[in-house]
Amino acid sequence: MADRAPLDKLLRPRSIAVVGASEQMNYGGRMMNNLITHGYAGSLYPINPKRDAIFGRKAYSTLLDVPDEIDLAVVIVKAELVEAILRECEEKRVGAVLIISAGFREQGTEEGILREHMVKAWSERTGIPVCGPNCLGVANSAIRMWANSASSLGDGPLPTGSVGLISHSGATAFGPLLNRSKDHGLGYRYIVTTGNEAALRMTDVADYMLDDPDIKALCLFIEGIKDGQAFIRLADKALRLGKPLIALKIGESEIGRMAAASHTASMTGNQEVFAALCRQKGVLLAKDYDECIQLAMCCQYGKPLMGDKIVVLSHSGGIGGFVGDKLGMHGLQVPPLARRTTDTIGQVAQGLASVRNPLDLSGTMQTEQLLDIVRVLDEQEEADAYVFATHGKSPLINRLHQIDKMTAKPVYLLWTSSQEDPLLQEVRNHGIPLFFLPDKLAATLSHLQQFRQRTRQGSEEITPHLAEEPPSGIPLDAAAAVTLNEHEGKRLLGAWGIATPDRWYFSREEAIREKVKQIDFAQAPFVAKIVSSTITHKSDHGGVLLGVSQPEEVIQFFQAHAQQEEVEGILLEAMVKDKIELILGSTNDPQFGPVVMVGLGGIYTELFKLVTWRIAPLSKREALRMLEEIPGLLPYLQGFRNMPKRDVDSLIETISTFSQWVYRERDRIESVEINPLAVLLEGRGTMALDCVIQRKLPLT
Amino acid sequence: MADRAPLDKLLRPRSIAVVGASEQMNYGGRMMNNLITHGYAGSLYPINPKRDAIFGRKAYSTLLDVPDEIDLAVVIVKAELVEAILRECEEKRVGAVLIISAGFREQGTEEGILREHMVKAWSERTGIPVCGPNCLGVANSAIRMWANSASSLGDGPLPTGSVGLISHSGATAFGPLLNRSKDHGLGYRYIVTTGNEAALRMTDVADYMLDDPDIKALCLFIEGIKDGQAFIRLADKALRLGKPLIALKIGESEIGRMAAASHTASMTGNQEVFAALCRQKGVLLAKDYDECIQLAMCCQYGKPLMGDKIVVLSHSGGIGGFVGDKLGMHGLQVPPLARRTTDTIGQVAQGLASVRNPLDLSGTMQTEQLLDIVRVLDEQEEADAYVFATHGKSPLINRLHQIDKMTAKPVYLLWTSSQEDPLLQEVRNHGIPLFFLPDKLAATLSHLQQFRQRTRQGSEEITPHLAEEPPSGIPLDAAAAVTLNEHEGKRLLGAWGIATPDRWYFSREEAIREKVKQIDFAQAPFVAKIVSSTITHKSDHGGVLLGVSQPEEVIQFFQAHAQQEEVEGILLEAMVKDKIELILGSTNDPQFGPVVMVGLGGIYTELFKLVTWRIAPLSKREALRMLEEIPGLLPYLQGFRNMPKRDVDSLIETISTFSQWVYRERDRIESVEINPLAVLLEGRGTMALDCVIQRKLPLT
Repeated sequence: MADRAPLDKLLRPRSIAVVGASEQMNYGGRMMNNLITHGYAGSLYPINPKRDAIFGRKAYSTLLDVPDEIDLAVVIVKAELVEAILRECEEKRVGAVLIISAGFREQGTEEGILREHMVKAWSERTGIPVCGPNCLGVANSAIRMWANSASSLGDGPLPTGSVGLISHSGATAFGPLLNRSKDHGLGYRYIVTTGNEAALRMTDVADYMLDDPDIKALCLFIEGIKDGQAFIRLADKALRLGKPLIALKIGESEIGRMAAASHTASMTGNQEVFAALCRQKGVLLAKDYDECIQLAMCCQYGKPLMGDKIVVLSHSGGIGGFVGDKLGMHGLQVPPLARRTTDTIGQVAQGLASVRNPLDLSGTMQTEQLLDIVRVLDEQEEADAYVFATHGKSPLINRLHQIDKMTAKPVYLLWTSSQEDPLLQEVRNHGIPLFFLPDKLAATLSHLQQFRQRTRQGSEEITPHLAEEPPSGIPLDAAAAVTLNEHEGKRLLGAWGIATPDRWYFSREEAIREKVKQIDFAQAPFVAKIVSSTITHKSDHGGVLLGVSQPEEVIQFFQAHAQQEEVEGILLEAMVKDKIELILGSTNDPQFGPVVMVGLGGIYTELFKLVTWRIAPLSKREALRMLEEIPGLLPYLQGFRNMPKRDVDSLIETISTFSQWVYRERDRIESVEINPLAVLLEGRGTMALDCVIQRKLPLT
Repeated sequence: MADRAPLDKLLRPRSIAVVGASEQMNYGGRMMNNLITHGYAGSLYPINPKRDAIFGRKAYSTLLDVPDEIDLAVVIVKAELVEAILRECEEKRVGAVLIISAGFREQGTEEGILREHMVKAWSERTGIPVCGPNCLGVANSAIRMWANSASSLGDGPLPTGSVGLISHSGATAFGPLLNRSKDHGLGYRYIVTTGNEAALRMTDVADYMLDDPDIKALCLFIEGIKDGQAFIRLADKALRLGKPLIALKIGESEIGRMAAASHTASMTGNQEVFAALCRQKGVLLAKDYDECIQLAMCCQYGKPLMGDKIVVLSHSGGIGGFVGDKLGMHGLQVPPLARRTTDTIGQVAQGLASVRNPLDLSGTMQTEQLLDIVRVLDEQEEADAYVFATHGKSPLINRLHQIDKMTAKPVYLLWTSSQEDPLLQEVRNHGIPLFFLPDKLAATLSHLQQFRQRTRQGSEEITPHLAEEPPSGIPLDAAAAVTLNEHEGKRLLGAWGIATPDRWYFSREEAIREKVKQIDFAQAPFVAKIVSSTITHKSDHGGVLLGVSQPEEVIQFFQAHAQQEEVEGILLEAMVKDKIELILGSTNDPQFGPVVMVGLGGIYTELFKLVTWRIAPLSKREALRMLEEIPGLLPYLQGFRNMPKRDVDSLIETISTFSQWVYRERDRIESVEINPLAVLLEGRGTMALDCVIQRKLPLT
């Protein structure tokens, strides 16, 4: 589906047929109207057996009657007629199909689901890409092709630009995301609404757009991700190309998840997993429409933000201070200016209220001196970017345009007057990124800065730590229990290179007295534990005995428990001291595959949620980033106050190894929980003290 | 200063003299222009010795020449002339003074500071209120008095309303907060910029406005709070009256703090303390300009939000779902509709995409049926509020107006098209709260809901737990050390009703062997600790011995440590088992007085920051709210998994008692840290296991 030519037919068609064209302002009429009003220059063929002409264009009874090749067939007929139209499309050998019609999987009926399967199968068989069904259409602003049934496009000119927009929701793309983009001077080069994604998916379209040299960033409105691995590949590609994916995602709360599930029948993933993926792969997760648009605008603008040092220039100390405050809260720098800079600015603009960053320029903000001040700042290399926080009249806006041309640094305008000021059109004409709220400005710059850092780190080589061949003799795909008991689990971990304590296992049938004799009790104290694949919280069942130092204690413990039905044996282990206990786990996410979780162990995991996630596999650098993400964890491991240092290097390697293992075994392992994972003193490694491993059940 | 009449002269003057009036567009000219253009109907006297008339009004050489009483004298002259003008004000017996002039404390010069002291002293001596200096002026929109030097008011009509705005920053008040308020249909009844607050403070003005029956809420742009106790009283009053204080505060990051300090020379408080105060007193802390304005708009609107159940109606599943998602993330409910409701709506509007909440009404959103649908929802009492997320034309907006009149529930509009749509003026005319971003809508409704819950709880009676008389014999104001040692500290805690373990103290001079004989070692194990007012981290110095069970161990420990210079004695204490360790502390904030901190003890306090704050004193209910605020803490105390329940009731009482104590002793105690505070098993209370108390040093 990532083949270029077929999507060219969808997004750069030389001819379009609209099956179900109309002059009424229904979906078919709006499609025609939008194509004509906005000046589509290719051939346009309305298909409607009941009319001779539609909006002055000759109408044809069927696709087959059109005396021309058809690149794009738009289908806007009742759902039950779609199959017949597709047959005509095949016969006519159209280049691509866009199905606006609803009445498919989103209905929740068996009929609708079958219809959707039909569309999918048809596209696979014919190799003709299908966008939709149940979508609102597409656009390519560069060729003025607005092939969509949106009711809110208006008649005015629609700007083009260098950002692509792909959305599961048509009303969101052609509603707030398009209309607000005009408020900010952003233009979308392409808009594609993918609807139910019977065949063509958001990831396919995004992949196509990323290859376009004119595209600088993509906006994605996501209701649910169907192919997590494709999304991961897409994010990796975007990062490699330095073209941000800017995501708005529905399903952050239970409510949103339900709504998304109902209306495009998508499965929305666990938001924590998605947020982790975004951090991991540099996807910019926007909080709201405006953040998405402003991020896109900054990418379209063309001057990238190359650092975190911001100089704020304002006519007011209160406004500049508030902006500086928000920048600081979002992790950016508003650094003090060098003495030489402040002296020079002081000479250039006498009587300034405050020659410090944020600069309170008072009335000087509206004078020619503003250029001189920026020139000084530029010469002294004080900033990676300038934020002008002010209102004004045309002279100020022209001056900002001059400044923008003069300096290589990005210039951002925070407009402090009405959002409806007609002057703003001038700002938009100059293409300077426009903001209205200090907090949103700061959030946007922070996102850009994070993306830059992420791209600078380059591609993440994952050093293989795993044995080439999986170890043999481990009861994973045998007729073993769904949950491996601790003894089996630790054998498996050990075989894959994750350290476990020295231990002795006594199955319930064994002659305990004989075996205990072979143990060197000089290694004591030991811990004795019951082994069971059904009892997971052993302590709660009295199944753990600490500080064992005599053979007789082991025998007594064995005799007390080995009779129990659920107990398969007992384990005697060397007790591990001087440790910090973490949790290291994985679950197999239906969309993204194995997801790795790291956090503080014990009650702190569940109660205080000091944990974080990543998609497997992980590089060591990414493992370190996980540790950095949990506030306080790294200082704790590195020796807080007079505490000793722990083996952080080994921990990082353990996490990376673990992630590679669960990734490689993703078809056989459902979940793993190593809890606790002991992080030992520096140089002594890590050790899995307990674990619960669940096999993946084959689909029946 | 909270006397009503003088502020009437500032905000409802029948006559205004402008000293330094001008026809040039400087501060004096803009003041005149704003007063005249916006139609101030009282008497207006320009004072300028060089001119006969200004903007057609007869000018006078001095205030004393004006043949009329002057309610408000506006002073816009060079700073060095202000003193002479104030003398004239006194002689003329003006009602109030507004000083626009800069050149006072904000300059940072001794001269400026002295000048500011002069203004303050003059106001105190004469009893005449002074607003400013270094402010931009005031407004009372109801009488069209725009007595300010703002350059951005424009010529158009300025709406009035039922919200007061008080700001330390003039450019913020008359800039974004005024101009954006028009974008949302909000009107400010009063605007006061207080500048340097030489005399009149934000809290004085706010107190005056709260008494006005026309005022429904106050917006405060705060650069720094000068009198914390006055702010606390103000917040209490606002809560009692059910009129929210909506705060925007600068100084959330170090950068903002520095900027605020530089330009109005304010001390900005610790943001964590201020945020805690807001939670405690129901102050709504807005994140940005728009949140402040939208909260104010919802208050002006007049229909309060009486619950958290929201029904969302939209033309799009994607948009409605996104809105529902954000509402859910902000803690609001988007509940499923009752079967009877969905059935009835299904009959009313056939062919709906989804009769569930959020309602995806598709094209029905633009029809008359919308009224019928809301009527059904209203009859079935499905919602506490309706959110309409859509765009549209005049008919939709008229219909929303009809719906707003029809239902007693609040109606909110999330506009999904351009923010510059001229249709929005119709929405504003109807007074329906208008939003543009789902996340901001949700944040606003969440704030309103929190305020409602806070006011419903009513006034917080603090049950006195303290002894009437402070205990005698405790070395607090004696010639004791600045830091009380553990022995003294525990005596003090015990005297005020905070439990401590059984213990024996041996000063370094004592005959240890004799005293130890009197101890019943059946109570062992004990812990032995060195006592020192200089060594605070005893364990780090080997000064703690756990599990002491023999007299000889005590004697050895004593002998090993009692010779050390810094050791004053040793303490033998009963060891406390079965506990959860918290931290309970207080510091004396320069603005708000004693601030109480509660959190998880040990390393968790410093590393993981599982702590929260409140201003003392606290009711028991507020103490409980502190515990609720730390995620996971209450479940942990109440018996997570198979852990035993702890004495939460006693903990709450301890926190409240502690808060009353540090409040009462605020002039003598600088800080207290009880770490750990042991929370024992249910019914067994709490116990301070260690403490560091610092006396407050008298100002020299």
